Amino acid sequence: MRKNRRTCDVPDATVLRLPLYLEKLKLLQAIGVEDVSSRQLAESLDIKASQLRHDFHYFGGFSRPGRPYHVQKLVGALEQIIGIAEPVPTAIIGAGHLGQAIANYQNLEIQGFPIKGIFDANPKLVGVEIRGQPVRDMDELEEVVLKEKVKIAILTVPAAQAQLVADRLVKAGIVGIFNFAPMDLKAPPTVAVRNERMAVGIMSLSFKVKCILQNMDLEEDI
Amino acid sequence: MRKNRRTCDVPDATVLRLPLYLEKLKLLQAIGVEDVSSRQLAESLDIKASQLRHDFHYFGGFSRPGRPYHVQKLVGALEQIIGIAEPVPTAIIGAGHLGQAIANYQNLEIQGFPIKGIFDANPKLVGVEIRGQPVRDMDELEEVVLKEKVKIAILTVPAAQAQLVADRLVKAGIVGIFNFAPMDLKAPPTVAVRNERMAVGIMSLSFKVKCILQNMDLEEDI
Repeated sequence: MRKNRRTCDVPDATVLRLPLYLEKLKLLQAIGVEDVSSRQLAESLDIKASQLRHDFHYFGGFSRPGRPYHVQKLVGALEQIIGIAEPVPTAIIGAGHLGQAIANYQNLEIQGFPIKGIFDANPKLVGVEIRGQPVRDMDELEEVVLKEKVKIAILTVPAAQAQLVADRLVKAGIVGIFNFAPMDLKAPPTVAVRNERMAVGIMSLSFKVKCILQNMDLEEDI
Repeated sequence: MRKNRRTCDVPDATVLRLPLYLEKLKLLQAIGVEDVSSRQLAESLDIKASQLRHDFHYFGGFSRPGRPYHVQKLVGALEQIIGIAEPVPTAIIGAGHLGQAIANYQNLEIQGFPIKGIFDANPKLVGVEIRGQPVRDMDELEEVVLKEKVKIAILTVPAAQAQLVADRLVKAGIVGIFNFAPMDLKAPPTVAVRNERMAVGIMSLSFKVKCILQNMDLEEDI
């Protein structure tokens, strides 16, 4: 069991690449590809093969040197590592535009995160059906989390309510919060929080846009 | 001008931290803090001071050794680097739930990305007002991009339409695409693309959830 504990001590950058590897491998699997080299897989993701091998090394490497990866086995191994070998019951808290957009996103279930409840405090939204599921009143939150063994909550409530709702989720036994509210949540170390920040995404894009525009100016100057 | 070109050759991980530094610094600025040490700023973001100094080193370092950073100057410098010292005209393509959620997110304008147009192909959505702006027909796309000097497009159309719309945006002169469609876009190297993948976020969270649950099991075993 010590090995399991060790495979959790992995850099964030590596963790963020695992889903990208899995996605590409599933595409290969879907078209019947049985083996793939680290170079082929890395190139399809626009990264270096050494980077990919370094990432996989945290989990034992998955292959003997000089041999390609077995696609199906690697898919299974990555699903185990990511924790989606079994479906992870998930709930959406906040059924505004963003919550509804996410609830309508059917890939979520395919990727291992079936939605077991959608909640909102707004009586006008309670009862509205999204892909066959009614939006539930926030009063039902703890009961549904317990009954459906919900592990991950997707938090799409306004910033002003986010911490209060997060506290309720933590008490109810949620282990992961995917936070779309534009503020940092406080949670105990036994709960994983991922803050999804629109600002981070668009500003990192802006940095590249600025660089492209600067280079265009430079070329005009030459 | 050579220096500008060099400041663009920066690792992605560093680029992704720039908005987080800026956000914290603006909070400090708002409460009247004038100086901050690398250690204080790094700790508030849960990273190492050496990491922060390494990131800043790509842009000249911003400070003399042993001296704190001047908050206001650093905010200005980061805004220049990120490319938001001047507002970046932005458009939203796709006014479904996700597009509407983003259009309603007023921080976007505050952070330097005023929305200069919202577009959809669905006649039922065209004319609907979102924060004072009508959803426009896709036919107006090129005209508005040109007139409003739109640099960044936020793409919230279904995957099946995403590449076609991206091609139109590239032709119209867009320099950055923030892609929320769950597929990889092809674009020329003169256009920056950032793919925002729900799957990456929730799977990296799932990895941490799995690790927490495993550790709990281990502790029970002991």
